[in-house]
Amino acid sequence: MKLHTYYRSSAAYRVRIAMALKGLDYDSVFHHLRRGEQAAEPYRSLNPQKLVPALEGEGAVITQSLAIIEYLDETHPNPPLLPADPAGRARVRSIALSIACEIHPINNLRVLRYLRTPLGHDEPAIEEWYRHWVAEGLGALETQLSRSPDTGAFCHGAMPTIADCCLIPQLYNARRFDCDLNPYPTLLGIEERAVALPAFAEAAPERQGDAEA
Amino acid sequence: MKLHTYYRSSAAYRVRIAMALKGLDYDSVFHHLRRGEQAAEPYRSLNPQKLVPALEGEGAVITQSLAIIEYLDETHPNPPLLPADPAGRARVRSIALSIACEIHPINNLRVLRYLRTPLGHDEPAIEEWYRHWVAEGLGALETQLSRSPDTGAFCHGAMPTIADCCLIPQLYNARRFDCDLNPYPTLLGIEERAVALPAFAEAAPERQGDAEA
Repeated sequence: MKLHTYYRSSAAYRVRIAMALKGLDYDSVFHHLRRGEQAAEPYRSLNPQKLVPALEGEGAVITQSLAIIEYLDETHPNPPLLPADPAGRARVRSIALSIACEIHPINNLRVLRYLRTPLGHDEPAIEEWYRHWVAEGLGALETQLSRSPDTGAFCHGAMPTIADCCLIPQLYNARRFDCDLNPYPTLLGIEERAVALPAFAEAAPERQGDAEA
Repeated sequence: MKLHTYYRSSAAYRVRIAMALKGLDYDSVFHHLRRGEQAAEPYRSLNPQKLVPALEGEGAVITQSLAIIEYLDETHPNPPLLPADPAGRARVRSIALSIACEIHPINNLRVLRYLRTPLGHDEPAIEEWYRHWVAEGLGALETQLSRSPDTGAFCHGAMPTIADCCLIPQLYNARRFDCDLNPYPTLLGIEERAVALPAFAEAAPERQGDAEA
C-alpha cells in the first residue's frame, strides 16, 4: 500500500496512527502542501479533491482519512479501532467527526489562505480565527468526554479508537498555533497516554521522511 | 426515537433522508438555528456541540449526522445505506465525507456569522466565500463521479447510499446561495432521480413542521 501524505497534515497523521496501530507496512508518497504539490499532476488526477491523505493499493484509491481508517478497520480488523456495540461505535464516530467536521476543515491550510487572500486578513486575525474554532470544538469535546462513563484511558474505554486517531493530531496542530490547552484536562490526559504508545510515536510529524527542521 | 432538527440544517436533512429510506418513525424536536435555540438549555446539555442533528433514543444520545446514519444502518440494516464490499463502502464514505468535511462545515451558519462579525465582511463577500467552497467541493466530486464506473443512478450503483443522503442536502443549500450548478451534470442527474423518491421528498426542508414561508 502507498499512503499519500504530508508530515504536517493532521488528516494524514490520523491515518498514519491507524496503520501503525494495526502494524501495517506502507510506502509514503510525500506531497508538500505549502508548495501546492497536492494540486499538481499526477496527484490531481489520482485525487481530484487535491487533498492528502489518499491510500493507494489493492486496485483502489481511497480518499478522506475517516473512510480510509474505516476501510482498514474492515479489512485488517486487529486490533479493532471501533468498539463492537452499535452505541459505542456511534459514540466513537461522533467524537471523530466532531474533530474531522467541526474543527479541522475550518482551520485547514486552504481556508487560512483564503482569509489572507482574497479576504485580506493579517496573521493575528488568522490566528484568532484558528484559536476560536479550536476552543469551540475542543471545549465541547472536553465537556462531552469528562462527563461520560464511557471515557477511559482513551476517548472510549481502555484502547485507542478512531476517536484517538483524530484527537492527537488535532491537539498537535493546536499547539502549533499556540492555543491554550489548559481548559481540556481530560483531552490532555488521553494525549499523554496515547503518545506514550509506539504507534502514536512513529506516526508523529517529526518522525516522517518529509519532516522539515 | 426523537430527532433534534431544524428544517434548513443540511446535516439534519441527511439524517431525515436516511430515516425515511429505512421507514423509521420518529418525533421531531425543532431548534431554530437562526434564533440560537441550539445553544440554549436544555439542548446545550444534551449536546454540548450546540449543533443539530442529535438522535435521542434507546438510552443514548448520538450526535454528528454521519455517526447517526451509520448507527441506524447497523441497527436497522434494511435497506442498507452502504454497499457490502469494503472498497465500495470506502468509496461511499469518501463521497459522504467530501461533502460533510470539505464543503458543509466551512459554509455553516456559525462560520458565515463569524465572517460578518467580528471579521466585518458584507453579504457579497460572504456569498462569494460560500460559492467558492461549493465550487471547489462539487467540482472535485463531479470529476470523481463522472469518471467512475461505480457511479450509477445514484452516487454508488442503483440504490441510494449515505453518499446520496449527503449530496442532496448540499445541492439544496447551494441553490439557496444561487450557486451555478450547471458544471455538475452527473450530480444533477443523481439529484433528479433521488428527489423523485418518496423518502427524499418527505425529508425535504419545506415538508418539515418547522418550515417557514
